[in-house]
Amino acid sequence: MTVPRIDPFHAVGLSTLAHRMAAEGRSIVHMEFGQPSTGAPKAAIAEAHRILDSDGMGYWESTPLKARIARHYRDSYDVSVEPEQIWLTCGASPAFVLALNCCFAPGARIALARPGYVAYRNTLRALYLEPVEIACGPAERFQLSAAAIAALDPPPDGVILASPANPTGTILSTEEMQAIVALCRARGIRIISDEIYHGLSYIGPVRSVLQDDPDALVVNSFSKYFSMAGWRLGWLVVPPALVEAAQTRVGNMFLTPPSLSQHAGLVAFDCREELEGHVRMYRHNRDLMLEHLPALGLSRIAPPDGAFYIYADIGHLTDDSLAFCARLLAETGVATAPGLDFDPMEGHRFMRFSFAVSTDRLEEALRRMTPWFARARDAAR
Amino acid sequence: MTVPRIDPFHAVGLSTLAHRMAAEGRSIVHMEFGQPSTGAPKAAIAEAHRILDSDGMGYWESTPLKARIARHYRDSYDVSVEPEQIWLTCGASPAFVLALNCCFAPGARIALARPGYVAYRNTLRALYLEPVEIACGPAERFQLSAAAIAALDPPPDGVILASPANPTGTILSTEEMQAIVALCRARGIRIISDEIYHGLSYIGPVRSVLQDDPDALVVNSFSKYFSMAGWRLGWLVVPPALVEAAQTRVGNMFLTPPSLSQHAGLVAFDCREELEGHVRMYRHNRDLMLEHLPALGLSRIAPPDGAFYIYADIGHLTDDSLAFCARLLAETGVATAPGLDFDPMEGHRFMRFSFAVSTDRLEEALRRMTPWFARARDAAR
Repeated sequence: MTVPRIDPFHAVGLSTLAHRMAAEGRSIVHMEFGQPSTGAPKAAIAEAHRILDSDGMGYWESTPLKARIARHYRDSYDVSVEPEQIWLTCGASPAFVLALNCCFAPGARIALARPGYVAYRNTLRALYLEPVEIACGPAERFQLSAAAIAALDPPPDGVILASPANPTGTILSTEEMQAIVALCRARGIRIISDEIYHGLSYIGPVRSVLQDDPDALVVNSFSKYFSMAGWRLGWLVVPPALVEAAQTRVGNMFLTPPSLSQHAGLVAFDCREELEGHVRMYRHNRDLMLEHLPALGLSRIAPPDGAFYIYADIGHLTDDSLAFCARLLAETGVATAPGLDFDPMEGHRFMRFSFAVSTDRLEEALRRMTPWFARARDAAR
Repeated sequence: MTVPRIDPFHAVGLSTLAHRMAAEGRSIVHMEFGQPSTGAPKAAIAEAHRILDSDGMGYWESTPLKARIARHYRDSYDVSVEPEQIWLTCGASPAFVLALNCCFAPGARIALARPGYVAYRNTLRALYLEPVEIACGPAERFQLSAAAIAALDPPPDGVILASPANPTGTILSTEEMQAIVALCRARGIRIISDEIYHGLSYIGPVRSVLQDDPDALVVNSFSKYFSMAGWRLGWLVVPPALVEAAQTRVGNMFLTPPSLSQHAGLVAFDCREELEGHVRMYRHNRDLMLEHLPALGLSRIAPPDGAFYIYADIGHLTDDSLAFCARLLAETGVATAPGLDFDPMEGHRFMRFSFAVSTDRLEEALRRMTPWFARARDAAR
């Protein structure tokens, strides 16, 4: 085997360019990443101040935080998870590496939806696992289905679920989730569920895969709902049979996440009022986007059930989403992500807007984009 | 291939027991881990307070910190490293995973010293790489040599250097380091050098592998010299040819380390006076250990050139270091690490003391251990 070349995340390049433009005095609206603009809850920041002055901050694994997360599964999903099944990580990304390393040996075939988060495909390749991408378009609401997984021959060793999904924000229905779980359990397919956008739903409660499959692994983090991306705190839930595999890998490959973040994260769990305020802002931003998208001429979008993204078909305007997003940035200062990051086959005619920005910045972006898209439509005619 | 079972770090079990005893009211001296008791530099903590109040703390990669680390290589080693070659990580552990993943595909054979840090062997196995352990005893000062690497047939694909080493604290001589580099460059063997204990030397400056091999990878972190273990901040230096491989892997598998830690780490770099005070304390602790080891009957130890460990031969007292360390903990409250963690072949007759504790706690440990070791000697006769 040879060390594989891994694809870059093109939005990072656009973001770097956007920051350079900002440094040169240009006004930039950052809609390229799924990064909350709100900062950590006030009480979490206060706790961090307290810990900075009172704790030596060595290697530490917070037993209270594990217990709090276990309670969260009971409270939010009526699912029983033991604190011992929960592993604290430096964000969702290493939690995903940990999950894959616990379950799969090189050569294993892992099914996932296309479009999907760029890191799934790339991390699978970096770990010598084979991504089995299933094309999911508007007809499938850009989500996997039991039928699509069942059609794979041979069946995959694992499947990655993401609901709400990135880049689309679509949420799996309870029926489809249960059908997928039933199929995977029957065929011995291990499920890894990325639930990082849980808490950010505009259509009601979101189901955790653990409600249907006690043998699934679940990745989550404090980066989205809790608005603590730069605190680098995430977690992985593993089934009892994988506790030892996770423990030995955490102890050798990762060690503990930041002490301060664990203390602050415990406090953040009880800042619901402040955090639900952010969700109300995202809902308002989403309404603004949906109201203005027709004026931008963007009528074919994925249903934004959750998360804070709009994934829009721009096939009537371009067949090169990377160049299109670069031109949008250069001419308006609005940074977005090209579909190419999420779908190497069809992504040349899609783009992703993140509406995790503040409402006034979003309004500014819409003011700038409306005439720009009108000109783009004229040019494409 | 199947998913391998990975060995646990036995010291973690002993530490958990020690914490349980402390919770029950027992007085414990923690000498089981290489964890500074001193806390972060005061100015770094002050900077963290300032950032908490002024920064949203999103995903962030500190350009100033990368530049500061590059300057450190120029100032301390007279080596030219570009900031682009430096990747910031959540501590040395993921930096090591990143390094291995950039260089080696499953099946690659990686040479390393035995005894050595438990995570090298275990992480290699978890990544489907083959550890090729070279037994290094007192005659080799527990370090690799060019001759020992040259004797491997077939030659390995890579080699892990650690100087100062864990668990022994021994430092490679300039001559041996250069001989190893010359051999490895001639045979196309990639070097990964763990330099996490740099700054902690009792015998003068320590050589970085980058002084002799511009194609080596170097792992380092803020956890030891900078006394910021729980801040989870480390770095990896890669040669120019591996910058793209590192960049794409960081962006997909890890993302950025904690924002707050990056800000504080930049300040910590200029807290030399405070940090050198810690080194003076370690030197004093080391002198205390060396003065008292004869009274403990421990005369065969690795030369503690650097780091903050004493690796002692206890073969005259036991052939079960794990049980021995457990009994020492139960009867005196002094927690240590069994040699078994560092050497699966000979470690049953070794143990490791960490003297990264405060001097008064170390004195307390020596008071308790002196009569206990006398009784152990009597019992073993």
